[in-house]
Amino acid sequence: MLRRFEAELRLPDGARAPSSMGSILHGALIEQLPEDYADYLHTENLRPYSQSIRWDRARERVIWRIGTLDRTAGEIIGAVLQSLEHIHLRQKGYTVDMQNIQCIEERGYQDIADEYFRAETAPRGAEIHFLTPTSFKQGGAYIILPESALILQSLLARWNRFCPDIRIEEDDLAQTLAAHTRLTRYALRSAAFSVEGYNIRGFRGQIALQFAGSDMVRRILGTLLTFAPYAGLGIKTALGMGAVETDIWKG
Amino acid sequence: MLRRFEAELRLPDGARAPSSMGSILHGALIEQLPEDYADYLHTENLRPYSQSIRWDRARERVIWRIGTLDRTAGEIIGAVLQSLEHIHLRQKGYTVDMQNIQCIEERGYQDIADEYFRAETAPRGAEIHFLTPTSFKQGGAYIILPESALILQSLLARWNRFCPDIRIEEDDLAQTLAAHTRLTRYALRSAAFSVEGYNIRGFRGQIALQFAGSDMVRRILGTLLTFAPYAGLGIKTALGMGAVETDIWKG
Repeated sequence: MLRRFEAELRLPDGARAPSSMGSILHGALIEQLPEDYADYLHTENLRPYSQSIRWDRARERVIWRIGTLDRTAGEIIGAVLQSLEHIHLRQKGYTVDMQNIQCIEERGYQDIADEYFRAETAPRGAEIHFLTPTSFKQGGAYIILPESALILQSLLARWNRFCPDIRIEEDDLAQTLAAHTRLTRYALRSAAFSVEGYNIRGFRGQIALQFAGSDMVRRILGTLLTFAPYAGLGIKTALGMGAVETDIWKG
Repeated sequence: MLRRFEAELRLPDGARAPSSMGSILHGALIEQLPEDYADYLHTENLRPYSQSIRWDRARERVIWRIGTLDRTAGEIIGAVLQSLEHIHLRQKGYTVDMQNIQCIEERGYQDIADEYFRAETAPRGAEIHFLTPTSFKQGGAYIILPESALILQSLLARWNRFCPDIRIEEDDLAQTLAAHTRLTRYALRSAAFSVEGYNIRGFRGQIALQFAGSDMVRRILGTLLTFAPYAGLGIKTALGMGAVETDIWKG
């Protein structure tokens, strides 16, 4: 079960909301969770949620978004969010009002897979918008270009971790899928994300990927990229990095 | 012997000068060359020059730039350029005035290599500005991200072709050099280059590369990237793609 929650944040006059504030909101959110669940999350490597903060130009609001990747996270985090009217940010020394908290989307993993595997035609491609700084790590180094294999590896790991019933597995699957995507358009720039006093290099912007290859390959690509806005992409998605929107070009 | 020539072009009122016009100027330039030299160029795969056209915002002028990569090209093309006051573009149906034609830079290959190999310290990195659409081809596909190995492979091929006296060779050298560069900042977007009625996908923008690795590796990187503005980068540099400026961070 996948859910996406959104809340509008009202910051004190003059306060800014850079993406890096995601890591402060993350700390404040964890403090609100039942203690045993917070303890459990600390022991996990891949967390069953992603969250991010960003200025939504169209709505002229600071938007806090939380995606949950399993039923437990959806229910516990959802209940906490619905109960909040404001959240205190100790590191900032101020309290933020929360408004219009809602679950904007709820879907099953099976439902997403069915959407692509039962469709008459396989999808043709996708656009990915990187809304907050996004970064990958490979061999100890930060990779700040959206390499398809890294995007797909990131999604496969999270999908298989949180949806054990529908595993998408095969040797070198991320590489195989990546070999069947073609970058056709983009606008990207590097962007730093500050966490615990140091800067992580990442990037923002958007790309268009055209899908090649068999129907099967294109259906898997559509499924994974529909999952991406819930899971985020790359490293530190629990702290506010790697928030994305995807737009799949149906066949 | 490397040379860079520049001319200011005055187009008819209302005429625009997109990068793709480079291929039309190329045709017009070839027509001005001595017939036997033009014939010789046709038989060559890697041409001993690059050229490009672009709007220079600072100077508010359309700038035509020609880089020559060996003595013969420098002398023949240089002599033709100096003799021109205007150039007729048959495909456009108009004549373009040429002003302030000059050789803005002249250097020897040895001189560039010496600059880096005799310096006390090796360079630390470089910025590359992609002034006209740039693209690479690998395995039959266009690659529209500035992958370091493709940039360096492109420069090594041209350097060794036109400077046989100072060959920079070793197995997998481009890969080795690329493994010692790190992309630290960038702003890039895809851009099309139209040639003979079809669009080639490429990109524009700028990147910053930090050099890692041994002194030797960093000296070679400095040498090749200083050569880049003469040679251009990637495919179709004779037609106006891949024009670059580079700025090397001395050690």
